[in-house]
Amino acid sequence: MVVDRLETQLAFILETEKLKQVFRQTLLLGDRRPENDAEHSWHLSLMAVLLVEHARAEVDLLKVLKMLLIHDVVEIDAGDTFAYDEVANLDKEEREQKAADRLFGLLPTDQAGAMRALWDEFELRQSPEARYAAALDRLQPLLLNFHGEGTAWRRHGVKKAQVIARNEHIGEGAPALWAYVRRMIDEAVELGYLAA
Amino acid sequence: MVVDRLETQLAFILETEKLKQVFRQTLLLGDRRPENDAEHSWHLSLMAVLLVEHARAEVDLLKVLKMLLIHDVVEIDAGDTFAYDEVANLDKEEREQKAADRLFGLLPTDQAGAMRALWDEFELRQSPEARYAAALDRLQPLLLNFHGEGTAWRRHGVKKAQVIARNEHIGEGAPALWAYVRRMIDEAVELGYLAA
Repeated sequence: MVVDRLETQLAFILETEKLKQVFRQTLLLGDRRPENDAEHSWHLSLMAVLLVEHARAEVDLLKVLKMLLIHDVVEIDAGDTFAYDEVANLDKEEREQKAADRLFGLLPTDQAGAMRALWDEFELRQSPEARYAAALDRLQPLLLNFHGEGTAWRRHGVKKAQVIARNEHIGEGAPALWAYVRRMIDEAVELGYLAA
Repeated sequence: MVVDRLETQLAFILETEKLKQVFRQTLLLGDRRPENDAEHSWHLSLMAVLLVEHARAEVDLLKVLKMLLIHDVVEIDAGDTFAYDEVANLDKEEREQKAADRLFGLLPTDQAGAMRALWDEFELRQSPEARYAAALDRLQPLLLNFHGEGTAWRRHGVKKAQVIARNEHIGEGAPALWAYVRRMIDEAVELGYLAA
């Protein structure tokens, strides 16, 4: 019985290995290859630990970390949807709900329910934990893109107003981080990384 | 003052980006490229959440996650040391201590101290959290290697007795996981993935 449960857990863990093969639009600063979702999830989780003092409200950091570790797992089936791709964003929710059903469904029932609830909470962005997690999920690609001279923005012709509209919810989760990003966006325009 | 602190934190976060370029001996199951430390750290952290019921003792899961998120950061300077490379393991500690001084030293003093203390605790492997974290750090490459038909073992001519000696401390952190691994090692020998 314990062995069956462990086997079920390990089957999910092996399935999530595929997240290392889901590539994002963000490029790494080092060799300029696209970042994958597993690396991104690690980086966000580390940021959550170090930046928690900037969260708007008191947060349960363990819950934030659980959310961040699983927030992109659905992209194993649904793929990564670029934040500024309006067409792909139209059916994103449907694709991701289906993926969540299949993937979290691989876990033992109690854990499937717990992980699905965390993912739903993250997506809803209503709790302090979900808002802080979502702020980091926006901040991290902005940071890499800015320090990589805006390659992903320039490649897709993204404009300042789009970046502001798409990211201003950072302020709901972490006002100090949004103030920082707001200055970074202006600097990106001045430096020619981002269209005005 | 707050801005300076945030700038310091973000400088560390950008520096740790390099962990995505530190490659391990383990190959991914998908495209068979070497896994990097950032992906590995994410996978371990997810495993820590899902397998915590198998820890030998009650553990503070938040502390385990913090440890796992930073446990390999020193390899940005010190490089990855293959578990079965006895020569490289001779000066591993010295290289990693120096790396820890520089890297954690980039953080604001209070966080530098806290992260260094977590890393030291992980390395010492005495607390229940460190033992559980270390068990996962051994289990994850074993799993990938087994399901990848033992490529890394075969490539380096690793033998069963070495795998047992190097990994039996999994039992200190998580007896059920060690029992599982012990059966997996026997099966690996039967299947020709690992030399007897």
